[in-house]
Amino acid sequence: MKVSILGAGGFLGQKLAARLAAPGAPIAVSALTLFDIAAPPAPEAAFPIRSLAGDIADLPADAIPADTGIVFHLAAVVSAAAEADYELGRRVNLRGVDAVIDACRRQAAPPRVVFTSSVASFSGGQTAVLGDDARQLPANSYGVQKAIGELLLMDASRRGFCDAVNLRLPTIAVRPGRPNRAASSFVSAIVREPLLGLATDLPVGEDFAVWIASPRRCIDWLLHAAVMDTAPLGLDRSLSLPGISATVGDLLGALEAVRPGAGALVRRLPDAAIGAIVGSWVPAFDAARAREAGFAPHEPVIDLVRAFIEDDLEATRRDRAAAA
Amino acid sequence: MKVSILGAGGFLGQKLAARLAAPGAPIAVSALTLFDIAAPPAPEAAFPIRSLAGDIADLPADAIPADTGIVFHLAAVVSAAAEADYELGRRVNLRGVDAVIDACRRQAAPPRVVFTSSVASFSGGQTAVLGDDARQLPANSYGVQKAIGELLLMDASRRGFCDAVNLRLPTIAVRPGRPNRAASSFVSAIVREPLLGLATDLPVGEDFAVWIASPRRCIDWLLHAAVMDTAPLGLDRSLSLPGISATVGDLLGALEAVRPGAGALVRRLPDAAIGAIVGSWVPAFDAARAREAGFAPHEPVIDLVRAFIEDDLEATRRDRAAAA
Repeated sequence: MKVSILGAGGFLGQKLAARLAAPGAPIAVSALTLFDIAAPPAPEAAFPIRSLAGDIADLPADAIPADTGIVFHLAAVVSAAAEADYELGRRVNLRGVDAVIDACRRQAAPPRVVFTSSVASFSGGQTAVLGDDARQLPANSYGVQKAIGELLLMDASRRGFCDAVNLRLPTIAVRPGRPNRAASSFVSAIVREPLLGLATDLPVGEDFAVWIASPRRCIDWLLHAAVMDTAPLGLDRSLSLPGISATVGDLLGALEAVRPGAGALVRRLPDAAIGAIVGSWVPAFDAARAREAGFAPHEPVIDLVRAFIEDDLEATRRDRAAAA
Repeated sequence: MKVSILGAGGFLGQKLAARLAAPGAPIAVSALTLFDIAAPPAPEAAFPIRSLAGDIADLPADAIPADTGIVFHLAAVVSAAAEADYELGRRVNLRGVDAVIDACRRQAAPPRVVFTSSVASFSGGQTAVLGDDARQLPANSYGVQKAIGELLLMDASRRGFCDAVNLRLPTIAVRPGRPNRAASSFVSAIVREPLLGLATDLPVGEDFAVWIASPRRCIDWLLHAAVMDTAPLGLDRSLSLPGISATVGDLLGALEAVRPGAGALVRRLPDAAIGAIVGSWVPAFDAARAREAGFAPHEPVIDLVRAFIEDDLEATRRDRAAAA
């Protein structure tokens, strides 16, 4: 099976490539193409890997070679960048999806497309618990663009251009890497930074709740979406996934249980601007359809902290030391 | 107030232009621009009217002149055409909305944009009654493109590029003109053709129900959307409108009451292909938000037949005679 990962240079794309290349991967890959704005690093593998650079909105033909069976479309401009630069968000997040659909139309058989949508495509605030029939009313351009991508891929699937599964990923925690300007940065930072021995700021209260998933579980879901039977989905190709609803207090409690005393590095520094943005986020989804479709439920919060320590802590420490 | 009508050559655009040009119009127009793929006919008016031809996806700057206050965006590729030609639907129905948004961004003040979306952006079938929070899950490319247009204009309004109201128009009946290949053609034809003394085919049963509105009431709604206070709408700029749910039997009963014996010209000729398409249509909406926002409720079915006779029957008869 030929597989392409678009947006393979990001942290999820890199983890997905590594998992496909590792022994015991759930997909028998015959060739892997990695595509991103810069040629992504390729893992060691028993099959050929090609690494390509380009513009997703002007997708080169060899990013999805003939007879590709699975396309993971992870390429996106993230929320803060899409809000700051409307044209850039439109180009990457909307024209990019059109380019993927057009590439699928040139294939002899419609490929499976696994598209990463987001809980940012919903709004409703801290009291909402959204079922699978909830309407997407995004309060940010990134969420609007993700909701539109879902619609485009739903229609392309109905027309037989591709066979899409749209995964609305929860906020991913604990993300490796550095704190950034995204409003959600603190969700990962309050666990990651203290584990690195570094101080970090908490801009919201401890009762603030968020719908999260570990990178490890997200990779499980991407792989399941690549091989699942899509017939039971019918017209509706989108799935809210079974993450967990955790408060900041839950995350800090898990951190303290795993590394006693680390929580002292978290400084309470309320930020009204961040509070206003994250206040529209929905902290809980029902995700019944995804559970019925075989997507694994999420591990408890403490395992999410342990997963970061097992999978990413040392690499993150090395990256920080190398950059210092 | 400068006003532009995009898609002014269609039957709604022509009726809207005539209403704005007639005495007692609810908007004080200082100049009117009519834009379509061919230069639209202009009515007599007390203010200057400019008629322009062009491609909506490559919108010329003078289609929305400087200091335009209201843009009616009615330009669209309709459902049968968008289904037959994916690129054409994408170009007109999606890139067209982007072009309108970009033109608004070049204005000194954000114009009101009144966008015609459609009940075709929903699916659910004959048993559904949809509230204002219902999810759009369109079963056709036209409906997908309309749902996307709503999202783009919602985001553009949130960002301050424009001040949009998205109107999900019911199936319009009684349409003037000729029977066409649209699956919905029969809804108007079973009234219009017998009133012209012509036979017509009925492809569904008499219990088939549809959410309809007269052209006259649609114009009322477009004008109300142009002047209403949008602040109470908040983030959500889309409104399902208070049409009426009528069965084919209701329409034939109203026809018979107005013109006894005319119903004999309607031939029952079940068509499984049309039945399959229209079977996904939703026959009833709650439309509470639109009623609260001051959109006039619909007249009874019999008045919809009378409105066609008063507004369009003679012109339709003349057009048919001229074409014969």
